[in-house]
Amino acid sequence: MQYGFGVDLGGTSVKIAYFDKTGTMLDKWEIPTRTAGGGEQILPDIAAAVLGYLAAHGIDRSAILGIGLGVPGPVDDRSVVNRCVNLGWGVTDLRATLGALTGLPVKGGNDANVAALGEAWKGGGENCENMVLATLGTGVGGGIILGGRPINGMHGAGGEIGHMVLEPGEPEACGCGKHGCAEQYCSATGVVRVARRTLAGSEEPSVLRAMPDFTCKDVFDAGRAGDALALRALERVYEYMGRFLANVCCVVDPEVVVLGGGVSRAGQMLLDGVAPYFQRYAFHACRGTRFALAKLGNDAGAYGAFKLILDC
Amino acid sequence: MQYGFGVDLGGTSVKIAYFDKTGTMLDKWEIPTRTAGGGEQILPDIAAAVLGYLAAHGIDRSAILGIGLGVPGPVDDRSVVNRCVNLGWGVTDLRATLGALTGLPVKGGNDANVAALGEAWKGGGENCENMVLATLGTGVGGGIILGGRPINGMHGAGGEIGHMVLEPGEPEACGCGKHGCAEQYCSATGVVRVARRTLAGSEEPSVLRAMPDFTCKDVFDAGRAGDALALRALERVYEYMGRFLANVCCVVDPEVVVLGGGVSRAGQMLLDGVAPYFQRYAFHACRGTRFALAKLGNDAGAYGAFKLILDC
Repeated sequence: MQYGFGVDLGGTSVKIAYFDKTGTMLDKWEIPTRTAGGGEQILPDIAAAVLGYLAAHGIDRSAILGIGLGVPGPVDDRSVVNRCVNLGWGVTDLRATLGALTGLPVKGGNDANVAALGEAWKGGGENCENMVLATLGTGVGGGIILGGRPINGMHGAGGEIGHMVLEPGEPEACGCGKHGCAEQYCSATGVVRVARRTLAGSEEPSVLRAMPDFTCKDVFDAGRAGDALALRALERVYEYMGRFLANVCCVVDPEVVVLGGGVSRAGQMLLDGVAPYFQRYAFHACRGTRFALAKLGNDAGAYGAFKLILDC
Repeated sequence: MQYGFGVDLGGTSVKIAYFDKTGTMLDKWEIPTRTAGGGEQILPDIAAAVLGYLAAHGIDRSAILGIGLGVPGPVDDRSVVNRCVNLGWGVTDLRATLGALTGLPVKGGNDANVAALGEAWKGGGENCENMVLATLGTGVGGGIILGGRPINGMHGAGGEIGHMVLEPGEPEACGCGKHGCAEQYCSATGVVRVARRTLAGSEEPSVLRAMPDFTCKDVFDAGRAGDALALRALERVYEYMGRFLANVCCVVDPEVVVLGGGVSRAGQMLLDGVAPYFQRYAFHACRGTRFALAKLGNDAGAYGAFKLILDC
C-alpha cells in the first residue's frame, strides 16, 4: 500500500488529492459539492471520483491506504459527523458510509484541525509534533496538534481559539454571538474594523479615508507605505494578536505557532509586528516559541486529510 | 506486578504512597526534603524509603511496577528535570538516577500536571480522559489531561493557565513579572486583592472593614453571611474566573473542568458563582462543559505519580 487520497470537503467544492505515502502530492482536482437533498450525494460523488481515478489510471485498490477527509463541522474520534449545516448533513458516519461505497479505509476530521495537521507535517510546522495553527481569514479558525495528533475536544471545539474573549466590554457582537472574541480583531474583517475605529477616533489624514471600502490588505499596504494612522491601527491589531497567541501558548505550550489565512499574507511585517506583544504577554518559559507562516495555502486540508490515514 | 509507589516531591517534604494497581492507596508517609548540597540527597533518600518499605513488609521487588514522581519544575517526556530551583537541582535524569538506586522503573512529571492526572483518574474528573485542573491556591496552577495524558508542553509550560492575561491594563505586577494574569484575580491572594479594591472603591459598610488582614475565606464567609460588598467583590472574581476558564476551554475543549486549591473550599458557592460567567464567555459548543471540585486534596500528586507508571 503506497498511495492514498486526501479530501478537503468544503461547502462549494470538494478538493481531492492523490498522494504517495511519503506525502508527495501526485495529483489534485476538484468536484462540486452537491448540498441539495440533505447533502446525500456528497459521499457518493467522492466515492465515484476516487474509484473513477483508480480505474482511469489502472491502479489496483490494494495499493491504496485509504481516504482521509476534512469536513467543515465537528467530527468525533470515530469519524462520525454530528451535524454539518454547510453540507446539509445530520449525523453522518464517514467511515461506514464512504467505506462501504469504496471498499477503502476512511478517516475524517474537522477541516481546521486537519489543515493544522497538514501544516504541522508538510507546511509551516515542518515535521513538528506540537503546533498551534491560527487561520486569520474572514474569521479566525485554529487547530492544535499535540503529539502529532489534532485536539478535537469533547464537543468538537478543540482549537476554536478565535473565540477566546479578549475584550469583554466590546459593544459589537462576534458572529458567534459573544462580545470581544479574538476573531473580532485578528481576522481580515477584524483588521478593517480596528482600522475604521482608529480612523473614527481622530482627524488625522490617512490614505484610507479616501477608500470607502478598504480591505485588510489596504490597511497593511498603507502601513507599509508609511501611513501613520494605518500603522497605529495595525499596532492595535498586533497587541490583540500577541496577547491572544500568548494566552493560547500558556495552555498548550507548542513548539511553533503557525499563522495562516488572508491576514498572514502580510508575511514578515505581521510576524515582526506581533513579536514584541507576544513577548510582553507570554509566560516566561514560552517566550522563545517559534512563529512561522503557513506554507500550504488551500492544499493544507488535503495534506492533513491524507496524514489522518497514515496515522491510523 | 501488582503494586507501585507514587511520590509527590515538594520543597519541604516528600509524600510517598504505596498503591495496588487498581489505584487503591494502601499506605502513605512523609520524609523531609533535604535540599542542601544541590539537593543531591533527595533521590537517595527516596530510594532508601522505598527499599526500606519493601524490606520491612517483606515485599519482593518483582511485585513492584515502579515509582512515579511529581516534581515542582519542568520535566520532559524522558523524565529529565531541566532545572528545579526549589530543590536545588540542575539537570537531573530521574529515570537513570532513581532507577539505578532502586532497580525499579521510574517515571517523572511536573507536579501540577501529575496532580491533574490524579484528579482525572480518581478525583473530581472521575475516570475522564480530557480534563482541565485549575488549582486556585496562593497562585493559580493548572494541568491539562488530553487522551489520558498530561500536556507537558515544549518548554514545560503546558497547563500554566494561571498566567493567561485577562487584564492587560493591570497596574500591579504578577509574581511572574507580567501584568493582569488570571492568578492576580483567581487565586486566594487574588480574591483578597479584588476585595481590597472593592472596599477602596466605595464607602459602603462591610464586615471586612473591621478585619485588617482578612483572608480569601473571610471574603467568602462574609458573602455567605450576606455582606453586600463582599458579594460584589466575589462577583468580580467570578467574572474573571468564568472568562478565564472559558478561554481555556476554547483551546482544548475538555470534558470537565476541576477546581482545586484553597479557593475551591468555597465549594458549591464558587461553582454557582462562576457558572453564569462561564456561560457568557464560552464558545457555544463548550457551554455544557461540566465543572467539578477536586477531591483528592494533598494526595492528588501521589495518585497521579503512580498513574504515570501504570501508563508506561
